[in-house]
Amino acid sequence: MEIINPKSTRIGWIGTGVMGRSMCSQLLKAGYRTSVFNRTPSKMNDLLSLGASACSSPREVALQSDVVFSMVGYPSDVEEVILGEAGALAGLAPGCAIVDMTTSRPGLAVRIADEALAKGVMALDAPVSGGDIGAREARLSIMVGGVAEAFEALMPLWKLMGTTYVFHGSAGSGQHAKMVNQILIGSSMVGLCEAMLYAKQAGLDPELVLKSVSTGAAGSWTLSNLTPRILKRDFAPGFFVDHFVKDLSIAIDEAEKLGLKLPGLSNAKRAYEYLQSLGHGSSGTQSLILAIAKQNGIDW
Amino acid sequence: MEIINPKSTRIGWIGTGVMGRSMCSQLLKAGYRTSVFNRTPSKMNDLLSLGASACSSPREVALQSDVVFSMVGYPSDVEEVILGEAGALAGLAPGCAIVDMTTSRPGLAVRIADEALAKGVMALDAPVSGGDIGAREARLSIMVGGVAEAFEALMPLWKLMGTTYVFHGSAGSGQHAKMVNQILIGSSMVGLCEAMLYAKQAGLDPELVLKSVSTGAAGSWTLSNLTPRILKRDFAPGFFVDHFVKDLSIAIDEAEKLGLKLPGLSNAKRAYEYLQSLGHGSSGTQSLILAIAKQNGIDW
Repeated sequence: MEIINPKSTRIGWIGTGVMGRSMCSQLLKAGYRTSVFNRTPSKMNDLLSLGASACSSPREVALQSDVVFSMVGYPSDVEEVILGEAGALAGLAPGCAIVDMTTSRPGLAVRIADEALAKGVMALDAPVSGGDIGAREARLSIMVGGVAEAFEALMPLWKLMGTTYVFHGSAGSGQHAKMVNQILIGSSMVGLCEAMLYAKQAGLDPELVLKSVSTGAAGSWTLSNLTPRILKRDFAPGFFVDHFVKDLSIAIDEAEKLGLKLPGLSNAKRAYEYLQSLGHGSSGTQSLILAIAKQNGIDW
Repeated sequence: MEIINPKSTRIGWIGTGVMGRSMCSQLLKAGYRTSVFNRTPSKMNDLLSLGASACSSPREVALQSDVVFSMVGYPSDVEEVILGEAGALAGLAPGCAIVDMTTSRPGLAVRIADEALAKGVMALDAPVSGGDIGAREARLSIMVGGVAEAFEALMPLWKLMGTTYVFHGSAGSGQHAKMVNQILIGSSMVGLCEAMLYAKQAGLDPELVLKSVSTGAAGSWTLSNLTPRILKRDFAPGFFVDHFVKDLSIAIDEAEKLGLKLPGLSNAKRAYEYLQSLGHGSSGTQSLILAIAKQNGIDW
């Protein structure tokens, strides 16, 4: 597979939500000929104005592409857009590649890889970290599992979307690496919200506390990037609560399969499910402060 | 109080362990005349060779000083070296300052401030974050509560020990800010160890995973600084488990006084107490991986 010439490689992109739209636009701006599909057609408009052509199914995208990327919501969506009757695999020719960038189940990545292999198609699971900002600024970390040859061949494309791209091994490895990432973020968010609630109740100025704690051993990406949003009561989604609950559920299921009990992860999942039950599924993950405050009878 | 002239201001330092020794040495190297006391006299040797003079009690230190710093282990030690019969307050003249840099109880800081005020002495609570590295490199974050005038007067000294120094308000505020810091680190350490255990059990290469997750939204000081030690099985103390259990216990007590239930903090405390019960009180906080692995029946 020859990927490096923008003129000759045809890209397909399935799923043009907050993340997918920004990521796909990097490829379009680099000159790649791109076909796109999204369940809600209006969400394709930005990409069409950049020169993408719209398709009416994932299969139609695949028929016009050498490499198809998917970035959708849930494992059930991944299954439909890749393995379904009108899915991408039904339209890809042998020697082409299918790359799922959704955060999804490692076991599903293995199943896709098997079905792709049977058709002579190379599959990669390649979930990302870095959020909406990382996608817009092409600064994502991309965690890849599957066919090593395809990972190497797609190098020019990883470089257009991210700053870190690591091959972790066989199919599902990228998803496992992403679970590691989400386990870290889950406990980090719980600590952040508990700490800010403590600061408020202790009568401290939260801006001054942030200054004190962000440069030392407590410093983190979440602290520096999400605490300012919490203090401004800006709960707009960089990353949806609904999607994070999905991720944490996958992480716990996988941990159980590996024989692991992880109380910090379980606690994070409980807290985010409670937040979801309060009607914040479409808010950003930083809205966890509202749930932890409410559990303590406090209005944030 | 005139602090800015190294020739005329006499410094006292009580407690010359890992942290205190490095911090005091910054003041000595800047030319301040310094008297020191430590319960185990041999731990003063490094500072004596830099020109400090040894005393046989905190009171004796105070009799020769305009500003006395304490950096000891537990609140009971703070009480003894500041408020005890041979403590620093017994030797300080009116107009002088006492600065406790130990991580200790906010309520004790208030009591010290009250007793100091009665003697015309200005008290500050000024715990730090940044660990052994931060102390050696004078890159600490110093969180200060107490008499604002004393905080301002001591500015030249904060600058010799740290890069961030914030005044948080009345006595005890510095300790409260430090609790915010420790709440953040507690959950962060739990997440880090659970994530690394997941990575190991999922068959991932932990070095590659660290590369993937440390630059994105899961990035943190603990991840970048302590994971490499975990992967090398280097459990030497930057920060003692025993001291961190003390800090987490204070944080939980204070949270309860503020009417807060913080499950992430409680879980971190339980995990560290279990680690302590395994005989790791004198190991570094990164040894938490051993406890979480053992709870899952895994040898790290």
